[in-house]
Amino acid sequence: MPNTMQAVVKAQPSPGIELREVPVPTPAAGEVLVRVQAVSICGTDLHIYNWDPWAQWRIHPPLIVGHEFSGTVAGCGPGVSTVREGDRVSAEMHVVCGKCFHCRTGQAHICQTVRILGVDADGAFASYVIIPESNIWKLPPSIPAEHGSLLDPLGNAVHSVLAGPIAAQTVVVTGCGAIGLFSIALAKACGAATVFAIEVNARRRSVAAEMGADFVLDPADEKTEEQIMEATSGTGVDVLLEMSGHPAATELGFTLLRKGGRASLLGIPSKPFEMNIARDIIFKGAVVHGINGRKMYETWYQMEALLETGKLNLEPVITHRLKLSEFVKAMELLESGEAIKVVMRPE
Amino acid sequence: MPNTMQAVVKAQPSPGIELREVPVPTPAAGEVLVRVQAVSICGTDLHIYNWDPWAQWRIHPPLIVGHEFSGTVAGCGPGVSTVREGDRVSAEMHVVCGKCFHCRTGQAHICQTVRILGVDADGAFASYVIIPESNIWKLPPSIPAEHGSLLDPLGNAVHSVLAGPIAAQTVVVTGCGAIGLFSIALAKACGAATVFAIEVNARRRSVAAEMGADFVLDPADEKTEEQIMEATSGTGVDVLLEMSGHPAATELGFTLLRKGGRASLLGIPSKPFEMNIARDIIFKGAVVHGINGRKMYETWYQMEALLETGKLNLEPVITHRLKLSEFVKAMELLESGEAIKVVMRPE
Amino acid sequence: MPNTMQAVVKAQPSPGIELREVPVPTPAAGEVLVRVQAVSICGTDLHIYNWDPWAQWRIHPPLIVGHEFSGTVAGCGPGVSTVREGDRVSAEMHVVCGKCFHCRTGQAHICQTVRILGVDADGAFASYVIIPESNIWKLPPSIPAEHGSLLDPLGNAVHSVLAGPIAAQTVVVTGCGAIGLFSIALAKACGAATVFAIEVNARRRSVAAEMGADFVLDPADEKTEEQIMEATSGTGVDVLLEMSGHPAATELGFTLLRKGGRASLLGIPSKPFEMNIARDIIFKGAVVHGINGRKMYETWYQMEALLETGKLNLEPVITHRLKLSEFVKAMELLESGEAIKVVMRPE
Amino acid sequence: MPNTMQAVVKAQPSPGIELREVPVPTPAAGEVLVRVQAVSICGTDLHIYNWDPWAQWRIHPPLIVGHEFSGTVAGCGPGVSTVREGDRVSAEMHVVCGKCFHCRTGQAHICQTVRILGVDADGAFASYVIIPESNIWKLPPSIPAEHGSLLDPLGNAVHSVLAGPIAAQTVVVTGCGAIGLFSIALAKACGAATVFAIEVNARRRSVAAEMGADFVLDPADEKTEEQIMEATSGTGVDVLLEMSGHPAATELGFTLLRKGGRASLLGIPSKPFEMNIARDIIFKGAVVHGINGRKMYETWYQMEALLETGKLNLEPVITHRLKLSEFVKAMELLESGEAIKVVMRPE
Repeated sequence: MPNTMQAVVKAQPSPGIELREVPVPTPAAGEVLVRVQAVSICGTDLHIYNWDPWAQWRIHPPLIVGHEFSGTVAGCGPGVSTVREGDRVSAEMHVVCGKCFHCRTGQAHICQTVRILGVDADGAFASYVIIPESNIWKLPPSIPAEHGSLLDPLGNAVHSVLAGPIAAQTVVVTGCGAIGLFSIALAKACGAATVFAIEVNARRRSVAAEMGADFVLDPADEKTEEQIMEATSGTGVDVLLEMSGHPAATELGFTLLRKGGRASLLGIPSKPFEMNIARDIIFKGAVVHGINGRKMYETWYQMEALLETGKLNLEPVITHRLKLSEFVKAMELLESGEAIKVVMRPE
Repeated sequence: MPNTMQAVVKAQPSPGIELREVPVPTPAAGEVLVRVQAVSICGTDLHIYNWDPWAQWRIHPPLIVGHEFSGTVAGCGPGVSTVREGDRVSAEMHVVCGKCFHCRTGQAHICQTVRILGVDADGAFASYVIIPESNIWKLPPSIPAEHGSLLDPLGNAVHSVLAGPIAAQTVVVTGCGAIGLFSIALAKACGAATVFAIEVNARRRSVAAEMGADFVLDPADEKTEEQIMEATSGTGVDVLLEMSGHPAATELGFTLLRKGGRASLLGIPSKPFEMNIARDIIFKGAVVHGINGRKMYETWYQMEALLETGKLNLEPVITHRLKLSEFVKAMELLESGEAIKVVMRPE
Repeated sequence: MPNTMQAVVKAQPSPGIELREVPVPTPAAGEVLVRVQAVSICGTDLHIYNWDPWAQWRIHPPLIVGHEFSGTVAGCGPGVSTVREGDRVSAEMHVVCGKCFHCRTGQAHICQTVRILGVDADGAFASYVIIPESNIWKLPPSIPAEHGSLLDPLGNAVHSVLAGPIAAQTVVVTGCGAIGLFSIALAKACGAATVFAIEVNARRRSVAAEMGADFVLDPADEKTEEQIMEATSGTGVDVLLEMSGHPAATELGFTLLRKGGRASLLGIPSKPFEMNIARDIIFKGAVVHGINGRKMYETWYQMEALLETGKLNLEPVITHRLKLSEFVKAMELLESGEAIKVVMRPE
Repeated sequence: MPNTMQAVVKAQPSPGIELREVPVPTPAAGEVLVRVQAVSICGTDLHIYNWDPWAQWRIHPPLIVGHEFSGTVAGCGPGVSTVREGDRVSAEMHVVCGKCFHCRTGQAHICQTVRILGVDADGAFASYVIIPESNIWKLPPSIPAEHGSLLDPLGNAVHSVLAGPIAAQTVVVTGCGAIGLFSIALAKACGAATVFAIEVNARRRSVAAEMGADFVLDPADEKTEEQIMEATSGTGVDVLLEMSGHPAATELGFTLLRKGGRASLLGIPSKPFEMNIARDIIFKGAVVHGINGRKMYETWYQMEALLETGKLNLEPVITHRLKLSEFVKAMELLESGEAIKVVMRPE
């Protein structure tokens, strides 16, 4: 075990991020030290990198960033009993209090005082990361390290797709970033009748088709709405999975939703916007779910079960593979829209 | 049986309404003729009276208005088998197609081609009204005629309150018009732990207290939000019943809603407005239901069962009793905010 | 249109059945005359053929039997508006009253006074059959006539499989007759993680494998229970689909069900039997659904959507194809256990 | 703090129980020491007292028995943060592993390796008891100590009643022991339309009426079934709460259940018995829940909320109040059927 390690650190309250040599941490009681093998970059990391208003409010440098990873257990603190050295693992990075109303009623994913590793405390863009035992998720042999680093966003998609009936349903996915793309594959694997994918970026549309979308449509194309209404006999879709956070996409999604349909909203709008809730929710008798994180740990069990069916091909979403030290290049690839998911490996 | 009858008719495409002598209609096959005993005025009737943009778009004069009523069966068309002369009845005034996806899957309340009697065809503000047999609801002896005329809005409240768990829940009702007031009594009768009523109008607040609200609050009072958060140990309420359609009330309601809470929206905003769905729905993991009409006929069975428990006191909501010929006075009482529910009787 | 037609008739209150020349019926108001193209034999038909105690109690000869079919509309009675001559159709053969509590609350599949065509009134083992318009289900071009004749039992399976969560679940199917076999394919198409099929008959086990079961097991093999417990890490399966009606299979199914699991029971035991509900339901915190018929018409919409995904291969279940006049041979093939589903065609 | 205390101990693997002077235990890390103020006797305690086959299999003497209690915190082990000395408390006595599938998915009440204090480890029939911090439930001032000792069985009733819809429902409770009686009051408080109580013991029937049952019936009376069917217009009841564990009562309950109704089974049959699941579950399309313990901790939040509404009168169920040293007399009172709930106080 080395004394120091490479880590991607938000060092200053200003744009940018840097590679630093920092001490390898030591696991306390109930904690697990993981040797990181693969990490993935999330939009949140980009916000931190760019030091936007949200990041300025939430982040307290210095901080090791990153919350999507997988690795191998390198050591356990006292009292750890369910994990041991050498286990291949990923982790839920929402660390919950266990004591609030939500934690005590099976709703820990909306814990009142959640802390997120990589946001509120040191994260995984490093050679080693410390994780509470309760948050460790062991990987079965069938899940390779790179896919293990995608379980956080894949779990968001599982949570969204399975928030209501999906078998035999027609589904529109608005926004085909990584989570939207995963949702397409998940919906198809779970028996969705027809999946319509709507996305502005041509590259992402092409990946949407690879993920199994039955119709891949550009919102700029004025026939998009008409095409979906026709394909659903004028009724509209049963399910809206809103993955963009864009006001126009959200409005289009609700327009396409049938009366009595289900809308699961995951994409986070950057600011309030005008909604016609009379037309889109009330008269429609719609059911709308806000989706936050992953159900702890129901979503994880579901995700592992679905991955083990072999029906989910995650590969098309990984557009780039880099070394951890190339994180600036990775950020730029994402910024430009060229990359969808960048997986990095610490050396 | 007379040949003609009094009826309140929207005669012209312009503001106002008039009393006319019109022929008593004859029930066709599958139709029931009801002698009207009591009618109540709904906000919709006021829109039609005022000839606002919605009314201009939807209403095709001449039309007998009114959709809240009760009466006695005066005659049956051929083939009617479940109702007979002399039966005391009210009715569901949404007449559905029976053939669309929604009608064929137990969701007739959001039928794709619903027609509403009193809006799209002749209604009940008259001595007699024609109702399809399928829409008749027989009144048990324990329900007096005036209460029978309130089943339409009471049903809206039942649909809202029972759209999710209510027993042992803390509930905020935003907007204490008739449906909001009914919702307070219903929530208490169904085991709600604490009901907070929020309303700008002092008279309605006083009726809210009579209906059983535990806390009656004025949104203009700056301590309202604080008081509710304190009374819920900082967690917020389990259930929001939005009955006002006002943007500010809706926003306040969502602010008060706890993470993972349920919002049932019935009040119809007059136009689109800005919503912070990131904060109020997504991060909260909220579940939002649009509530439209009454479930056909599940809501009606529930409503009758709840009325028969004797736990619901509808009286405080009826603030005025008039003759049908006094409908202009009734409209004015409602317009001024002095009246909550006006019940009228044809002579 | 001929005046007479061939029909398979239960003519006497005694074992057996016969081919007769009978008048082609005329559709009354709201009825549809269908030219039959394919019929399938159900276990119920075998009970009628054998004149067992149930048949003696329920059946009033003379009766044209058969309730699984598809065909082409040959004529419509007055008032029929949603169907026309030449439409390819199948039908829901449960004819409901439309007036009872269940019919009026979206539960028509358990109507209090249901009549079943082919059991309580003339059925489809004939050249022509009369069906109420409301019960007609139009076939899309992608569903061939023979598959159209299987929608009744396929619908039983859809109703069972979708009675609770199925995606990402481990499932045991006890009993691999036609409905059990369809359930295997459906569970897999809807994202089930692992499907265990349990069946005594070797031929059916072989078809279970063709339908996509991950494990096909013989209850006589003493390792069956152990194998399933091992494959589920000692937890047991999430879902039991009981399709046999056999006491031993039912007990084995409940033994395999995990705590908090879901059991959907469709197979009909021939008589009461001993159950350990303390161990199998109460301490387990299990949820048990009785499954009857097909939800009208939610199940039909789901079924069509799932068929159109192309994920369901129904072919392996059809083991024999005969002429309608060979019905005695068909009954014997079924009786012997050699056949699973026999499809017949009127000449 | 004394060094020793009184405790009711199962000392030998044979019938009977004895009062002993034992050391006051010391709370370890994460544990809370509670000074007991009131305890109640459960049927389980009677099984242990009588040393029946279940007790012989499950209990390992010596053991302090008892799991229904309330008291005041007398000391906290290291690391306890949510409770402090002087807090008035009761507790969930199911101590769960926190690591199995069920604990990790919000189903801790069916933990795979639960240990019950008073059954598998020392319980509360003593001056002091040790409880894990996570299991402590703080009592609001409105709940007196004696009622606090009833939260375990009251929670069973809350879990049963709220396992499905209850507002506006007709309900039959079969078996009016303490949990059945609580269920009556809960169902009424939560808006049940009509509650039918069925019980063989006249004293319990009289308490059932005090708890608010609309009809109190003797199963020995041959008109019981007829009366309930009449009162439900021939449809049967919406909800069966089976609280007796008796085969005949269970069968009667299912007979009374309407098609599509909900049966929540809590009473534990002493051995397997014959059930007609074709008639009672499958053709009925019934939904059956096995009820085990209390949902941790959703049920506790619901229970507290319902107690605080003031709608639940628990008093009629407490038929006897004794000193802890009179436990043998208490056991005899229960054995004889004279007592329903006996509350005892340590001196």
